[in-house]
Amino acid sequence: MDGGDLSFTAYLVTTESDFIASLRTLATHPAARGLADDCAVLEIGEETLVITHDAMAEGLHFVAGQDAADLAWKLVATNLSDLAAKGAEPLGVLLGYQLGHDDARFAEGLREVLEHYNCPLLGGDTIGQSGPQVLGLTALGRATHRPVPSRAGAQVGDTVWITGPVGAAMLGLEALKAGAGDSMAYRRPQALLAEGQALAPYVTAMMDVSDGLLLDARRMAEASGVTLAIDSAAVPIAAPEHRRADALRWGEDYQLLFTAPEGAALAVPAYCIGEVLTIGDAPILLDSAPPTGLLGYEHG
Amino acid sequence: MDGGDLSFTAYLVTTESDFIASLRTLATHPAARGLADDCAVLEIGEETLVITHDAMAEGLHFVAGQDAADLAWKLVATNLSDLAAKGAEPLGVLLGYQLGHDDARFAEGLREVLEHYNCPLLGGDTIGQSGPQVLGLTALGRATHRPVPSRAGAQVGDTVWITGPVGAAMLGLEALKAGAGDSMAYRRPQALLAEGQALAPYVTAMMDVSDGLLLDARRMAEASGVTLAIDSAAVPIAAPEHRRADALRWGEDYQLLFTAPEGAALAVPAYCIGEVLTIGDAPILLDSAPPTGLLGYEHG
Repeated sequence: MDGGDLSFTAYLVTTESDFIASLRTLATHPAARGLADDCAVLEIGEETLVITHDAMAEGLHFVAGQDAADLAWKLVATNLSDLAAKGAEPLGVLLGYQLGHDDARFAEGLREVLEHYNCPLLGGDTIGQSGPQVLGLTALGRATHRPVPSRAGAQVGDTVWITGPVGAAMLGLEALKAGAGDSMAYRRPQALLAEGQALAPYVTAMMDVSDGLLLDARRMAEASGVTLAIDSAAVPIAAPEHRRADALRWGEDYQLLFTAPEGAALAVPAYCIGEVLTIGDAPILLDSAPPTGLLGYEHG
Repeated sequence: MDGGDLSFTAYLVTTESDFIASLRTLATHPAARGLADDCAVLEIGEETLVITHDAMAEGLHFVAGQDAADLAWKLVATNLSDLAAKGAEPLGVLLGYQLGHDDARFAEGLREVLEHYNCPLLGGDTIGQSGPQVLGLTALGRATHRPVPSRAGAQVGDTVWITGPVGAAMLGLEALKAGAGDSMAYRRPQALLAEGQALAPYVTAMMDVSDGLLLDARRMAEASGVTLAIDSAAVPIAAPEHRRADALRWGEDYQLLFTAPEGAALAVPAYCIGEVLTIGDAPILLDSAPPTGLLGYEHG
């Protein structure tokens, strides 16, 4: 998820990485997928449950005073995006809500987003104010295709795809900060549930792009034990051409990134942006060279 | 859950009640049980999933500087207690973790509690510090008995039971604050999973006592549309006799409160503390009169 201030985020990397490394030693159940996927995938009876939990904090993932209805939308949509990346159909959400500056607006946004995705509120918890607001959401879904796509399945020789442009949320955040322009892409991201379900039978690996295309592509490459070679010019961007490098590193567009065998008949429109190579010195290549600088939001 | 400072809690009642009332209008799916039970209960294939999410905040549910290993224990145990009250067997947990003052100790406590309950960590999210620490946990379980006990099933003529004494957590918190004495009951509550599973086939209603016996009994009475008549002398307490009134109102002991038909052969030791009457003017009676003052922690 979006980490806000990058220098603060960079400071956190060590602590957070240590902590997550210690959690990983606890997450030995196969359903946890080594804490290296978008969701947990749990077999129960004849069904396969897909479960994710994401949290957002004021000052880190959103600014004080942001429309609480937008926060509700984003909290739900980003979690449902994780389900989308696994081809899952939402069953419902549980909300961990800390009272904030406009609880009524939050409830309005929650109603909008849950109705939009036809996803029921199943439960949760509400707690009082203690400082900057922290919000959590757990989304549950059922797999529509098995095996459930993971980040780890990219195969050498596959092609690399993305469902749509990146950079829209970047422009949206800039518009929000400037108080002018269209900020919808940042405030109200879409979870590509139908696309994820349609793609699940055809992909070898899939994830949503939450932290930046290059960073998330690296995660997929590392999980799969391959190198992803990205052709930067082939990546659709929603920003002016001179912002291409930024758009490739910005997050929160929630497009689906996936790999598929050469020539696979995909069920939804998508853009081919590269190919899967045998693992080399770098997990990703951008126009044949390892990309430089930050690749995205480096946290959790 | 424990609300800490009562005056602050009382202030929150209005806002929080309004918010929860608006959430209730969103929670129309039967699995949500009207947000009036310990857990959501979701049919999936041939199985029944039992799901709960609870959150804890520094300054409200725990004090800054408290051993982070205890916080991890309590976060997991209180959520598993909700599963216990539904007779569910844990399948796993997802953690919403905000970095705090001692993440390594938190991870140690998490390991202890998950091993103790043989419950896997399935996933979650870690976010940076933004102020007082907020922790969330989602616990998933499968029902071992169907129908899954609810709070709403108490029948006129049933007897009212509790699995063990109340007041131990109250003494534990006092010991912790005093820096002397045994605080384990407060710091490391137990989830009565085996008891809940053994009782589920026999009870008409069941819940865990998290916010105070009298308050939780009132919730059960209101959900069931009955009056619960409690015999105060019959309630086992872990505190000196002069603290009986406090012990009946204190929370966090996580005993199971349940109703059962007269003469039911219960599978675990328990204490009969009252009977279920036709609904009267008051949802609960204590020694034949409505109890006075606060009944427990009045929040969420």
